[in-house]
Amino acid sequence: MVLAELRQFVAERDWSQFHSPANLAKSISVEAGELLEQFQWNDDADLAAVSEELADVLTYCYLLADRLGLEPHHIMLKKLEQTRTKYPVSKASGRSTKYDKL
Amino acid sequence: MVLAELRQFVAERDWSQFHSPANLAKSISVEAGELLEQFQWNDDADLAAVSEELADVLTYCYLLADRLGLEPHHIMLKKLEQTRTKYPVSKASGRSTKYDKL
Amino acid sequence: MVLAELRQFVAERDWSQFHSPANLAKSISVEAGELLEQFQWNDDADLAAVSEELADVLTYCYLLADRLGLEPHHIMLKKLEQTRTKYPVSKASGRSTKYDKL
Amino acid sequence: MVLAELRQFVAERDWSQFHSPANLAKSISVEAGELLEQFQWNDDADLAAVSEELADVLTYCYLLADRLGLEPHHIMLKKLEQTRTKYPVSKASGRSTKYDKL
Repeated sequence: MVLAELRQFVAERDWSQFHSPANLAKSISVEAGELLEQFQWNDDADLAAVSEELADVLTYCYLLADRLGLEPHHIMLKKLEQTRTKYPVSKASGRSTKYDKL
Repeated sequence: MVLAELRQFVAERDWSQFHSPANLAKSISVEAGELLEQFQWNDDADLAAVSEELADVLTYCYLLADRLGLEPHHIMLKKLEQTRTKYPVSKASGRSTKYDKL
Repeated sequence: MVLAELRQFVAERDWSQFHSPANLAKSISVEAGELLEQFQWNDDADLAAVSEELADVLTYCYLLADRLGLEPHHIMLKKLEQTRTKYPVSKASGRSTKYDKL
Repeated sequence: MVLAELRQFVAERDWSQFHSPANLAKSISVEAGELLEQFQWNDDADLAAVSEELADVLTYCYLLADRLGLEPHHIMLKKLEQTRTKYPVSKASGRSTKYDKL
């Protein structure tokens, strides 16, 4: 349903011409920066502002996935399987160490 | 179902201690940079690599949403309503101009 | 001298063909993400690693400036004048508030 | 001279309390995102806007270097030596391939 709404929003504005994968990847970084700005000087951030910026990042992620024929939940679950292997519970429990230094 | 899997993955590793909203916002930016790297020098990127990096961005977005009690699809739809108002079809059609210059 | 070295490095490899302003802007974001990764889970970071990633960000900044005919120290000083006006000492002292909310 | 100006600017506003290395690293990513935004939908960007955003990235880079006792030009030259080794002219000439795939 989200995807249908996003597609309609883009189609109504004839914006798919701007949504090349590279432009969408840039947009994700731009919006991730705006989200990070909410936490720039301290760890407390305004929930409403964070919610809006997070929504922007997610929206461009969904548009990129759709453009590439990928399904968001599917690729998340697939990647999670890989991450489980890279970070086995026995080694990674309670540690934030990167896998190549575990 | 994705959310349940993510929660279990984090709980098994006792990683929620690292997942402050600020750290998750940083993580989203870090992964957005890795996604962008796939398009650094040209617009063609390897689909498998893009899929993995996009999954990482999405995963941290979902973890941040969950941490803050937000539901991803809900905040996307809510933001979409605001964006519809900022970019009315009559003005924004076929143009990539930012709303404050439309 | 740094600039001369950078130019020679790029020329020897025939890389200026890849260094469009847009590609360099992407590169700055990519490297900024790698720098941020050093602080992803905590505020203590390895100095040698931070130094290398910071050098990468700076290098792409210098390459972009050079490409656009800008001089790094000049544009920094020029922007500083603007920021002084946006953040007058009397209002901004000891506060991290953004100028539009001061 | 740039450094002296930056230090005075920060001291006058009593802002060094906010300038932890982690906060400065976040700031670099935030500003890199604003720079990238100038190239979000196409490769032509307004020179004045790019100059300002690039100045912001550079300023935070200089502040981070200063905070960590690093000298910008020194670390750039040091890193350049490493990059020369990673990308020998004979292999890297005219190619944008990452070193681990050269």
